[in-house]
Amino acid sequence: MANTQDPQLVLDAKNIEIPADHYTFTERDVILYNLGIGATAQDLQWVYEGDDEFAAIPTFGVIPQFAAMGSASLDWLPNFNPAKLLHGEQFLSIKAPIPTSGELVTTARFLEVLDKGKAAAVTMLTETKDASGKLIFENQSTTFIRGSGGFGGKRVGMDRGAATAANDVPKRAPDAVVEEKTSAGQAALYRLSGDLNPLHILPEFAAIGGFNKPILHGLCFMGIAGKHVLQKFGPYQDIKVRFAGVVYPGETLVTQMWKEGQKVIFTAKVKERDALVLASAAATLVDGEAKAKL
Amino acid sequence: MANTQDPQLVLDAKNIEIPADHYTFTERDVILYNLGIGATAQDLQWVYEGDDEFAAIPTFGVIPQFAAMGSASLDWLPNFNPAKLLHGEQFLSIKAPIPTSGELVTTARFLEVLDKGKAAAVTMLTETKDASGKLIFENQSTTFIRGSGGFGGKRVGMDRGAATAANDVPKRAPDAVVEEKTSAGQAALYRLSGDLNPLHILPEFAAIGGFNKPILHGLCFMGIAGKHVLQKFGPYQDIKVRFAGVVYPGETLVTQMWKEGQKVIFTAKVKERDALVLASAAATLVDGEAKAKL
Repeated sequence: MANTQDPQLVLDAKNIEIPADHYTFTERDVILYNLGIGATAQDLQWVYEGDDEFAAIPTFGVIPQFAAMGSASLDWLPNFNPAKLLHGEQFLSIKAPIPTSGELVTTARFLEVLDKGKAAAVTMLTETKDASGKLIFENQSTTFIRGSGGFGGKRVGMDRGAATAANDVPKRAPDAVVEEKTSAGQAALYRLSGDLNPLHILPEFAAIGGFNKPILHGLCFMGIAGKHVLQKFGPYQDIKVRFAGVVYPGETLVTQMWKEGQKVIFTAKVKERDALVLASAAATLVDGEAKAKL
Repeated sequence: MANTQDPQLVLDAKNIEIPADHYTFTERDVILYNLGIGATAQDLQWVYEGDDEFAAIPTFGVIPQFAAMGSASLDWLPNFNPAKLLHGEQFLSIKAPIPTSGELVTTARFLEVLDKGKAAAVTMLTETKDASGKLIFENQSTTFIRGSGGFGGKRVGMDRGAATAANDVPKRAPDAVVEEKTSAGQAALYRLSGDLNPLHILPEFAAIGGFNKPILHGLCFMGIAGKHVLQKFGPYQDIKVRFAGVVYPGETLVTQMWKEGQKVIFTAKVKERDALVLASAAATLVDGEAKAKL
């Protein structure tokens, strides 16, 4: 049994060298991402490169680091099986104004390996910088690997601030609610931003994963909900979600939001099935001082 | 007046050197084009690069030559005004199997300049070849320039076969009809395949052109109708349309088709306004012999 592996396991993970990943993009890639998370033809600042306010929707920050995050093998885990992977949580911090074209470089490392009993929870940290070395995005991504737990490791991890906050929902009606019907082609479009996992397009593959049909990318509906926060409360400097359920392309996402100081706590559910899909979620709004910096 | 300019005008046009244009593309560009003309998430052969039958929808052939076609100035025409341009007709001939990635090179030249009275009609020919020099696509594109006619030139051009055939609609009910609702974001998506003209996204610009709102690209709804021909009658080796009206994103395109030997004559109209938008249109089906070559 792997009961005594923890210290070595964590040490091994933290020492794994992950090659830096280069991401080159143009305004077209920004528009494609924005459309992929439901920007409409009327959202000129998101779909027309000639608009004075043209910009990436902030959750674009998960895109340049996507390949780096996925490039690290997890085969050092006990009983590792890639089919048992689940994307558990995502935290994105926006450190500087988001460029709309250029080359970005991402470095990745393992931050934490927790033993959740049946599953292992592995958190990676990525840092995405521009050509001058300026930090643009930090991401923390937690993956659950079912069947890889029980190795005698720590169950509860370190307090990583906004990245690990519980974000309990206040006991009052939400301050804002936005409904958005995704399109039947949402995943087919979103995947062109870089996540080509056939789970999101190929029915046979989705069936192997235990789903009736291909599911929408978690980072896609995180982006849709994040867009709702942006539309209702303005720019944020970080955003964190826990993936609590699946969304099928074509379903309606309902984002409920509560403003608590500089934080917007939110949840997202699928209207048709009344199923919670994003929990423990919040965005920290850009305050006066930070706004001036951004 | 420019009444005696014709021979020199035509000669000038035919001698204009247009630089060759290079188009580099990947499977992602093919999928983006296919989605732009309404491929759905169920059309795996058009939206999933891992599908055994993965392919570009044949009207993709207008894309690699688009920049070359648009790079030639028309300022040698009398009273030329770029705001007076209208895309009149498009003919595409598919000469070889369509690659799904690589680099293609397009050369362009003026083929014909006709005097339609108030307007000039300028036809360009483009040839698109692969890296080995094999011809993949030929396009003939006719543009009407209002206010540039009356220069004493020929009114009727040469017979260019399928590219100029009248394609009169048979006096019987159509053999097939396909309806497809375009999406409100269709033009915002299609433009990422290369035609960034703000006419298709910016309301103020559309207004200058005399339209209530941005209009769908002509080559986009040619692609949608061409997809209907493909779905009902199989592959074709060439396709020709005359643009007879505009489509607003979100409207429903109705393609009516009549099979006449190896030719499928078709029209397209907008259901909501009962307005003809594609006329004199036909596709020549791949016959047994040609199919073997393709």
